Amino acid sequence: MLQRPLRDPHTRPGDWVQLTQVQGRRFFLFRLTPGEQLHTHKGIIAHDALIGIPWGSRVTTHLGVPFYVLPPSLSDILRETKRRTQILFPKDIGYILLRLSVGPGTHIIEAGTGSGALTTALAYAVGEQGRVYSYERRPEMQALARQNLALWGLEGRVTFHLHDIAEGFFERGVDALFLDVPTPEAYVAQVRAALRPGGFFGALVPTTNQVSRLVAALAAAHFAFIEVAEILLRFYKPVPERLRPTDRMVAHTGYLIFARPVEPTAPPEPQ
Amino acid sequence: MLQRPLRDPHTRPGDWVQLTQVQGRRFFLFRLTPGEQLHTHKGIIAHDALIGIPWGSRVTTHLGVPFYVLPPSLSDILRETKRRTQILFPKDIGYILLRLSVGPGTHIIEAGTGSGALTTALAYAVGEQGRVYSYERRPEMQALARQNLALWGLEGRVTFHLHDIAEGFFERGVDALFLDVPTPEAYVAQVRAALRPGGFFGALVPTTNQVSRLVAALAAAHFAFIEVAEILLRFYKPVPERLRPTDRMVAHTGYLIFARPVEPTAPPEPQ
Amino acid sequence: MLQRPLRDPHTRPGDWVQLTQVQGRRFFLFRLTPGEQLHTHKGIIAHDALIGIPWGSRVTTHLGVPFYVLPPSLSDILRETKRRTQILFPKDIGYILLRLSVGPGTHIIEAGTGSGALTTALAYAVGEQGRVYSYERRPEMQALARQNLALWGLEGRVTFHLHDIAEGFFERGVDALFLDVPTPEAYVAQVRAALRPGGFFGALVPTTNQVSRLVAALAAAHFAFIEVAEILLRFYKPVPERLRPTDRMVAHTGYLIFARPVEPTAPPEPQ
Amino acid sequence: MLQRPLRDPHTRPGDWVQLTQVQGRRFFLFRLTPGEQLHTHKGIIAHDALIGIPWGSRVTTHLGVPFYVLPPSLSDILRETKRRTQILFPKDIGYILLRLSVGPGTHIIEAGTGSGALTTALAYAVGEQGRVYSYERRPEMQALARQNLALWGLEGRVTFHLHDIAEGFFERGVDALFLDVPTPEAYVAQVRAALRPGGFFGALVPTTNQVSRLVAALAAAHFAFIEVAEILLRFYKPVPERLRPTDRMVAHTGYLIFARPVEPTAPPEPQ
Repeated sequence: MLQRPLRDPHTRPGDWVQLTQVQGRRFFLFRLTPGEQLHTHKGIIAHDALIGIPWGSRVTTHLGVPFYVLPPSLSDILRETKRRTQILFPKDIGYILLRLSVGPGTHIIEAGTGSGALTTALAYAVGEQGRVYSYERRPEMQALARQNLALWGLEGRVTFHLHDIAEGFFERGVDALFLDVPTPEAYVAQVRAALRPGGFFGALVPTTNQVSRLVAALAAAHFAFIEVAEILLRFYKPVPERLRPTDRMVAHTGYLIFARPVEPTAPPEPQ
Repeated sequence: MLQRPLRDPHTRPGDWVQLTQVQGRRFFLFRLTPGEQLHTHKGIIAHDALIGIPWGSRVTTHLGVPFYVLPPSLSDILRETKRRTQILFPKDIGYILLRLSVGPGTHIIEAGTGSGALTTALAYAVGEQGRVYSYERRPEMQALARQNLALWGLEGRVTFHLHDIAEGFFERGVDALFLDVPTPEAYVAQVRAALRPGGFFGALVPTTNQVSRLVAALAAAHFAFIEVAEILLRFYKPVPERLRPTDRMVAHTGYLIFARPVEPTAPPEPQ
Repeated sequence: MLQRPLRDPHTRPGDWVQLTQVQGRRFFLFRLTPGEQLHTHKGIIAHDALIGIPWGSRVTTHLGVPFYVLPPSLSDILRETKRRTQILFPKDIGYILLRLSVGPGTHIIEAGTGSGALTTALAYAVGEQGRVYSYERRPEMQALARQNLALWGLEGRVTFHLHDIAEGFFERGVDALFLDVPTPEAYVAQVRAALRPGGFFGALVPTTNQVSRLVAALAAAHFAFIEVAEILLRFYKPVPERLRPTDRMVAHTGYLIFARPVEPTAPPEPQ
Repeated sequence: MLQRPLRDPHTRPGDWVQLTQVQGRRFFLFRLTPGEQLHTHKGIIAHDALIGIPWGSRVTTHLGVPFYVLPPSLSDILRETKRRTQILFPKDIGYILLRLSVGPGTHIIEAGTGSGALTTALAYAVGEQGRVYSYERRPEMQALARQNLALWGLEGRVTFHLHDIAEGFFERGVDALFLDVPTPEAYVAQVRAALRPGGFFGALVPTTNQVSRLVAALAAAHFAFIEVAEILLRFYKPVPERLRPTDRMVAHTGYLIFARPVEPTAPPEPQ
């Protein structure tokens, strides 16, 4: 009844692997390459020992420390993004995807590119038919993001622009647009020009002052259905007999703002 | 530079429309059909008045009440799902998609189908190349979910099963599996049989007692990297000069549990 | 070993009583008066039936509906405060008492009086040796607060002022001062004049804009150790086998700001 | 109009002082003693330089590092409690005081004493007329708590018992009783025996499993109005132009449970 060929239950050369320590949360992400070796802080392991074994297998380094061999998850990939900037967190990215209706075939603009964590999630979600247009002013950041996207084989879905968005976006009629920049309120006209009528706009800013300025700018520029929210994610220690939250948590990443451009001019009359 | 044809900035017959009241948060979701009329609590509006106008237009009913014409968002569609059961919230669904790596091409099982809100989000995210297998025991719930999925044109991506999962799942080797049932701990063996090695498992349960039971069952069945979390979403009143959270919020929907099946048996030795 | 006379385990005429419905959270607060009757929505009960019985007794109305006879708690008294304004919540009041070191013997100013909920808690905490100075501009609010304080027999510990604090406070050298007014930033000089050197200042404001203005004014007026915080209180359904938070909660009451006046002028040199 | 003698605005020998670093949150709590010296990581300062100066003064060490001279606050005293155990947090203590109606004249039992943080707050709140009965089984913990209470001059309000509460409490008819022990459900009968009819019971436990067990035991022992709650305290960076929560916060200290003993037996009938 399964309507597609089974994925191979065994690892193959070229597969992306997440090698995760059995005790603890450290893991390594890499591509299986015959003849190579992985050097960890817990010992060495040959790629050849990891090829052709069942996914989920337990393997040990030459020092006897056990690891599991797993296909990587998107949220682990995001967490592992090589960064020089603060990156968006999975708790926020998941909600952004839903609120902006990002899915297969979506065309979306984001600025700035930063280290490319959100770019990675967007490129994954839009699929082969969609496209991500990612703007950045700092060449070294763009280079890092390109490298991160290439790592996951997703660079083909992204158009990278080294460009100041104050001068406008190159695209017109995109489905959605997300800003992760310090002064999003300065680019509301540029957003309106690039976004399809009725499209989806979102932004993340860390301070309440920025929220106030952006909301004011959006309202002045005829964006409607403005929504401001924040997401708190609390983890629990997974111990059945002593279930309780962890001692500490992330208290704040940023405020999420969503809005939709509507017609500022005189409406057609109903007939 | 835009690498696809522009979406038509005007509405066309057959388009899904979200007609949203300018003041307030009430909206109507329907398909534009020449000759038909929409009857709202604020007056009547002819579909013909909504066809061929720019997206984002402001229109008025015969009573003069203004509405905006917008393409529907996924989160609004989910919120609007006709329901007979408690449905999953966007705050949880977004995080689930990310943690289970659900994207174009993913094959995923869910149980129970319920009203089909999560089914809709999954079907949207997996695209044409992916597939959702959705299990439910109550015929009337499955019928409602089918109807909801058909409404959004996503029923072609879903295989509906009217089946008790205690007897097992029909599929093998799926990428991910999500349980939204009262006793998920009872189906851990069935989950392991259906999931690809190293695949992604998730569940939502409302009580701490259920969390304890599920975590114990997963640990006993050799699932690793068990994560328990809860998500709090807090909205703000979008008033720039008086920015503050809303007075009340949803305090709880459920606890999210994630885990990954690993090899229970003797591992291969490194060479 | 108990170092005081036992409180009478039986109710006596003149005692304050909290008559609480066995099922549900409705309760009545009143003073036991021989010959009187309490008329509830669930039937009538004679005060005489409540006098001379053990505290914690279960009694029934003439309709057979059961109630418990309890000494009232401070937090229930606060919740029951007759109000015309938004009142402070126990979650915030408890923390305020601690941060301002309010205890037996403390002299504290508060403005505005409002319905007198915080006034009640302060008057309770400062005891016979302490004193509360409460400022209000609206005569009808002051009258209501006086009535509330008299109800609990705490009016003797409060000096009520009908006065605009823009013109300054009458007292000098108080231990602590709390502002619950719309523009606390306007009264920072007046606060400094009334507060003892190194005393405790606190305020509650509902919006982030007010927080920014107050923090700026405090810093400019040489207040140190400025702290901004918010408190979230989440209740759980007390069902042992299905333990979980309630569905909804209060998302926001206000932001709490604390600070301490320090010497703005040239410091003495160490010898 | 001030109805008591002004507190001396200048420091005097014997005063408790909180010497707080101008930059940063480090502080020292000590009693001013002529002829003594305070040695800090930022240099030495003579007590004599701190005596007879205005509270709130800014002083400097021999290395020129500035500090403020302040009267200590209760919450800083609690935070500074010398500890060998996890202590209760001000956010929880403030709410406990309110829910248990602890104020001048209250007689309250607590167990276990631990490092004495809650003991200190209770002793402060009950005043000269009230009393705290504090139980502990570990002599070394009791010794530490005695020392902490003596430090603040509050030991005269506390009766320390080195005693296993499984054998019962010595007092009868106390107004309130608070348990901070691993298995509070084991002592419900002892609590009922010590508490005045209709008195106030509270407890703090870290895990959901303990909450379930305690709630079940309380319900079985005819405690009514059981309340379960948790308190989240979130701090903000006090920067007016960039107002935002701190990056991280305490995610969990414990669950608070409150209940009141009611009559288990046949009630008197209304007349």
